[in-house]
Amino acid sequence: MAKYLITGVAGFVGRYLVEYILSQDADAKIVGVDIASGCYIDIDYKQLNLCDGETTEKVIANFCPDYIIHLASMSSVAQSWENPQDCFENNNAAIYNILRAVSNNDIKCRILSIGSSEEYGKCDNLPIRENASLNASNPYAIAKISQEVICRFFTIAYGCDVVMTRSFNHIGPRQSERFVIPSFINQLVKISKGYQDKLEVGNIDISRDFLDVRDVVSAYYKILIKGQTGEIYNVCSGQAYQLKDIIQIAEDILEIKCEIVIDKSRIRPNDTMLISGDNSKLKSLGWQQKKNINQTITDMISYYKEKIN
Amino acid sequence: MAKYLITGVAGFVGRYLVEYILSQDADAKIVGVDIASGCYIDIDYKQLNLCDGETTEKVIANFCPDYIIHLASMSSVAQSWENPQDCFENNNAAIYNILRAVSNNDIKCRILSIGSSEEYGKCDNLPIRENASLNASNPYAIAKISQEVICRFFTIAYGCDVVMTRSFNHIGPRQSERFVIPSFINQLVKISKGYQDKLEVGNIDISRDFLDVRDVVSAYYKILIKGQTGEIYNVCSGQAYQLKDIIQIAEDILEIKCEIVIDKSRIRPNDTMLISGDNSKLKSLGWQQKKNINQTITDMISYYKEKIN
Repeated sequence: MAKYLITGVAGFVGRYLVEYILSQDADAKIVGVDIASGCYIDIDYKQLNLCDGETTEKVIANFCPDYIIHLASMSSVAQSWENPQDCFENNNAAIYNILRAVSNNDIKCRILSIGSSEEYGKCDNLPIRENASLNASNPYAIAKISQEVICRFFTIAYGCDVVMTRSFNHIGPRQSERFVIPSFINQLVKISKGYQDKLEVGNIDISRDFLDVRDVVSAYYKILIKGQTGEIYNVCSGQAYQLKDIIQIAEDILEIKCEIVIDKSRIRPNDTMLISGDNSKLKSLGWQQKKNINQTITDMISYYKEKIN
Repeated sequence: MAKYLITGVAGFVGRYLVEYILSQDADAKIVGVDIASGCYIDIDYKQLNLCDGETTEKVIANFCPDYIIHLASMSSVAQSWENPQDCFENNNAAIYNILRAVSNNDIKCRILSIGSSEEYGKCDNLPIRENASLNASNPYAIAKISQEVICRFFTIAYGCDVVMTRSFNHIGPRQSERFVIPSFINQLVKISKGYQDKLEVGNIDISRDFLDVRDVVSAYYKILIKGQTGEIYNVCSGQAYQLKDIIQIAEDILEIKCEIVIDKSRIRPNDTMLISGDNSKLKSLGWQQKKNINQTITDMISYYKEKIN
């Protein structure tokens, strides 16, 4: 009976990951931790601030997991500009405390550390492969690079068994409207119902590689089980869409055509125009994408329609 | 009148750097800090543990330097294997506290952060250029990569003016005998005087790119004054010597031939066989190497001869 510890379990990805693990390993024993006071998922849940090294060590040493999936992160680029030091310190402290707990207590466990495509920054050769140089251009991206460096440190210095991702944008039902696609879909559903007039956007000329959250969690599981120690895997679809393409897809599904207005506060400084990833390393582990962009947008529209009713 | 703050000033490089700065800028106002209780150099000296963020901030805010040269480091690979966490945490805390002090107090100053060729690890394309991938294989090397990431964080998030080096091995009179070349020269001088029988070595088949400490400090000054913000510069001679070549050169100068014995405790785990650096980026700033390897070894021999007398 394998034991899984999931950090940041109360976030967007957490619930999907729990469902996926249980679908693959019915006997899985899962403990979820998060900074949130409660969690709606039916698992063994503990509130935990991973910046608190002592308590983190106690939780890990007591549970003695076979796998740790470290989802917890301050994961918004916009927020990272508001308070860069908080973003950097919290992301670093969390992974450091986890790995120190594992190495100090000599726990035989594999750790999956989630990074971000933001680490690549501006990149000339697309789709981006894992060996590309890292030209991170925002505090969140640098914090994620730092997280990788900490993983490499514990792998080399203490023989920890860490696998890593650089996850590109993921989308799906229930994602926070702080993120761009849920914000658009939510607005578009409201427009289709007559509750809103215009679609408020930032820079919709930028292109991103979006992967459905359900494909993201199957990728995470695959990397956790099959990945090679110390290696980094892009988690992405391999295809980029401009934000305005996504709007178009959603408009087609909703059978509407809406007026778009640009809200300058939604435009990020130093934003990269085009990002698309190469997922061949991930595919070499046997992973396959199951949901295309149309299915994902359709599911997100259904989610917001239900939410409005 | 420019103000320079030098950290780790009591170390090997510190004294040479102070002399060099004064030779280039006679009006320089220099404050040196170090964890050591005292310092033999005739400058304004303060004992300071850079891991103490509050005191570090006070020192920096009070002096308000135009330049900070951050030499302080736990700089031994061997020591980093003995206590990896100490090495990692101390190196990180030091640069973090310096940069936080500068950004929190909005001090307009340029910071030179010293990295290491160890960051490159095993590298197929020699001589190594700054855009090579980083395959660090020991805790010290990873700590130095982390130091760079912290510099990039403060450059991007707070607009700090940081320039960085990846310094290859440096040698010269007064270097600690914990390091390989001073250990060899010291032993060889003793052998030439009849105080010792055999030369104790580790792996002398490895090759390193050695630069005279006096050329190192002129490079640091050049990068400090002419380097471009956010850029990294190799500091090296461009030429690699096997350790046994160095022994040969010293034997020739001393006109001796000695018996060599291998001491296994001197052999490092995971050591890289060959390292040589490309210094063209540094040369493009106008820097020139002044001392060749024979001159350096000659000076080191003189130093140990005097020390014995």
